[in-house]
Amino acid sequence: MALTHRPERSLAEIVGRLGGELIGDAQIVVRQVATLAQAQSDHISFFTDGRYRHQLHATRAGAVILGVAERNATPLPRIVVENPSVYLARVLALLNPLAPQRAGIHPSAVVDPSARIDRSVAVGAFVQIGKNARLGRGTVVHDGCSIGEDVRIGDEATLYPRVTVYHGCVIGDRVILHAGAVIGADGFGLAQEEGKWIKIPQIGGVTVGDDVEIGANTTVDRGALDDTVIEEGVKLDNLIQVAHNVKIGAHTAVAGCVGIAGSAKIGRYCTIGGAAGILGHLEIADHVHISAKTLVTKSIRQPGTYTANMPFAPHHIWLRSAAHLRHLDRMAERLRQLEQKIDELKKDQT
Amino acid sequence: MALTHRPERSLAEIVGRLGGELIGDAQIVVRQVATLAQAQSDHISFFTDGRYRHQLHATRAGAVILGVAERNATPLPRIVVENPSVYLARVLALLNPLAPQRAGIHPSAVVDPSARIDRSVAVGAFVQIGKNARLGRGTVVHDGCSIGEDVRIGDEATLYPRVTVYHGCVIGDRVILHAGAVIGADGFGLAQEEGKWIKIPQIGGVTVGDDVEIGANTTVDRGALDDTVIEEGVKLDNLIQVAHNVKIGAHTAVAGCVGIAGSAKIGRYCTIGGAAGILGHLEIADHVHISAKTLVTKSIRQPGTYTANMPFAPHHIWLRSAAHLRHLDRMAERLRQLEQKIDELKKDQT
Amino acid sequence: MALTHRPERSLAEIVGRLGGELIGDAQIVVRQVATLAQAQSDHISFFTDGRYRHQLHATRAGAVILGVAERNATPLPRIVVENPSVYLARVLALLNPLAPQRAGIHPSAVVDPSARIDRSVAVGAFVQIGKNARLGRGTVVHDGCSIGEDVRIGDEATLYPRVTVYHGCVIGDRVILHAGAVIGADGFGLAQEEGKWIKIPQIGGVTVGDDVEIGANTTVDRGALDDTVIEEGVKLDNLIQVAHNVKIGAHTAVAGCVGIAGSAKIGRYCTIGGAAGILGHLEIADHVHISAKTLVTKSIRQPGTYTANMPFAPHHIWLRSAAHLRHLDRMAERLRQLEQKIDELKKDQT
Repeated sequence: MALTHRPERSLAEIVGRLGGELIGDAQIVVRQVATLAQAQSDHISFFTDGRYRHQLHATRAGAVILGVAERNATPLPRIVVENPSVYLARVLALLNPLAPQRAGIHPSAVVDPSARIDRSVAVGAFVQIGKNARLGRGTVVHDGCSIGEDVRIGDEATLYPRVTVYHGCVIGDRVILHAGAVIGADGFGLAQEEGKWIKIPQIGGVTVGDDVEIGANTTVDRGALDDTVIEEGVKLDNLIQVAHNVKIGAHTAVAGCVGIAGSAKIGRYCTIGGAAGILGHLEIADHVHISAKTLVTKSIRQPGTYTANMPFAPHHIWLRSAAHLRHLDRMAERLRQLEQKIDELKKDQT
Repeated sequence: MALTHRPERSLAEIVGRLGGELIGDAQIVVRQVATLAQAQSDHISFFTDGRYRHQLHATRAGAVILGVAERNATPLPRIVVENPSVYLARVLALLNPLAPQRAGIHPSAVVDPSARIDRSVAVGAFVQIGKNARLGRGTVVHDGCSIGEDVRIGDEATLYPRVTVYHGCVIGDRVILHAGAVIGADGFGLAQEEGKWIKIPQIGGVTVGDDVEIGANTTVDRGALDDTVIEEGVKLDNLIQVAHNVKIGAHTAVAGCVGIAGSAKIGRYCTIGGAAGILGHLEIADHVHISAKTLVTKSIRQPGTYTANMPFAPHHIWLRSAAHLRHLDRMAERLRQLEQKIDELKKDQT
Repeated sequence: MALTHRPERSLAEIVGRLGGELIGDAQIVVRQVATLAQAQSDHISFFTDGRYRHQLHATRAGAVILGVAERNATPLPRIVVENPSVYLARVLALLNPLAPQRAGIHPSAVVDPSARIDRSVAVGAFVQIGKNARLGRGTVVHDGCSIGEDVRIGDEATLYPRVTVYHGCVIGDRVILHAGAVIGADGFGLAQEEGKWIKIPQIGGVTVGDDVEIGANTTVDRGALDDTVIEEGVKLDNLIQVAHNVKIGAHTAVAGCVGIAGSAKIGRYCTIGGAAGILGHLEIADHVHISAKTLVTKSIRQPGTYTANMPFAPHHIWLRSAAHLRHLDRMAERLRQLEQKIDELKKDQT
């Protein structure tokens, strides 16, 4: 999805559309957003992190977005807002509109005649769409996607190239699926018989709520009996594995390389750090934050931040600690014995 | 691969086909499997986990599958079997037959004339099949797959959309490859010359045994000289990396996000937990179980379960432990000194 | 990309092309490389690891490659070189030339008329190439790749099947992208507004330098404002996540399953072990080596090897250590108290 020619906007136009308090020359025109360090006179920049105050003083930006507490931090033309990061997101969108995709189905696409596809939908080359699939208004399906039978995709969704949605999955409005994402592959359901694995057919589906974004090559498995559920507003980064019957609560964000095992239930408004892991059948409350690479091995009932990491060190120093890690219980026992001996010595003295 | 219209079956028919002891009304008809909590009168449910006994008492299911020890745990019509999980898998398959794929090659597929493809094979849209590839009886290749030159795929295999099999790889009978899986990309073979990396051509292949299932976006690299080998009955979940010249023994199951480094040899009947890692050139015996996120840094010769995880904690508590982790050797030294001093004190006393 | 019929070469021809000192019969002809254990008389083998000395004595190889210190380690015909691993790579390439890909664009490919594609380029089936894309001399694009608008790919690059390159990304000369790799998907840029996530449009690109190799299903996100940069000679294994605005210095090698968070800067000539993680906004100096599964949580200014791993153990033993891990601060406090008591006891004695 390429960008159109970028529009230019005066500060007056920007504030007219997006709000905020404008201080300075309203006729200043900007074409793009840039960091304080990179910005030129036709750029608007932003000041959201106090560590860059020296860059604010030196910037060549034509204008700056900043928070109300910093309204006088620069003499430059500026837009003062409550939430500069969100405002930045909106200015970026305004200055970088997505190229409209031509509605219609590419002649190379293979679409089952029973599929119901709104006339406003854009379907790219080499897309396959199965029986009874439904695609809502304004949805864009890029080249090479595979959409199974009975799939339902809402309005204004975007499927980047080579996304696979297996049969029967349901995708909400304004969902974004990045390249290589796989929605609805079989869960890892196995029964054991005399040492061999028997596949348990996975007859559930996947339900993806509105405004979800799913990163490149991320996989969300279909449920065993009931559905795997990704609630509205959830954001999944790249290369995440979501196993069968997981439920991720609304507005939770999950960073890259996370693995979530079967039937785990994650609350709303959580954040899961990169490469964290969550074991199966656990429950995590709302507003829980898991640090990077932490393995969650039991349910978490209280909001808060939870962590488990070995601190890194130069290898030869780490080796010395690692040797003791295996023997912590012996260290603890020696400590207990010392305490006992000391107590005896003290008694003897008195 | 969508499901056909689901058949309904009487308990008599089910037991007639799959065995088991039927207790109660044999004419009860069921259409689908559901959990005890979700089941309605036209569902058959299952009782495999004692924690759900209260649900067994309350269920509306028309019938229940349970083990011999629980034969009288419910008055409902029921099928009593040795292994309820395996029986469940078979009932699910019976009630949810896969839609037969129409044999034949989609007109959009690009198939080299030298490829030998059984007449019973189904090849989907936008599939590319290279020179001298061979596909066995009843195999289904979904849309967008890429099958390289000299690839051999057995009978009744299923390749979901957008699977890539590089040249020369060999895939067994009844193998299932999920969407986005990549079999046979180059191993990470590098030689160093004056700080720069020289690619070592990877001339081995990949051999995947019968009845293997490989999950979505999982990658299995080709061998450097000899083959990478996945033996029969192995089950790989999603987003797993199997490096060059790895050998995974028969009937081993590997959960999602695991990385297995080059030339590691894993035994038969092992289980590898999610996001575990196995370093290169190690050997792991048969019947070894590796816990989630555990890094295996040396060979394991004895069957058993092996673990390495930092237990997670609220962040501020974890911080306190982490500070000491870096200095375990100093703690150990202080402990040693204390023991010495105590001994001296004791001597002095006597 | 399949291999052509393999040529055979005399030792004289090999040394004539690749250098090295030939000892023994120069007319010996070899067809392939094999390990010492597997080699037959028409194979050339190599001795790069002293642990295999017994195999060197028993090998049936027709000839052996070895280092200068081992020039007399075998009576077999041999090629003596400074760097046997690099020489091995070159002999492998000589004996296993890649099949030349027929230049031209497959009739099924969908190529925008504005794309500039050198006549020597090979474009496979079901490839989509967007507006104004440019592909350099001798580049090979295998089936099912998706190349966005304004993408620039250099000379002699290879894109294996089903690679996605999003709009505007720049790929250097001789770059190899393995199947399923995704270059330029949106970075995970989010602003929070009343608990909900607002997408921050990602307007940067990705720049991939010359001689980079990127593994199967690896993802490299586009930058938020500036580019994500992979410098020349970098090697990325499979299933790696590179977040927005990461910079990886020249000739650094990254093993499989690594996650690198946003804006991390990694130096030149580094190696990052499998499943390691690097937090965002950190800097890592040149010549740093990170061990497998280590999480880097702060910047590293000095060359060297850095590690953080919990050593694995049989599960019941690990459980005993794990119990103490949560309470290391209490152990440290008890130790401190003991030291104090001992000091008091000593004072009392004197």
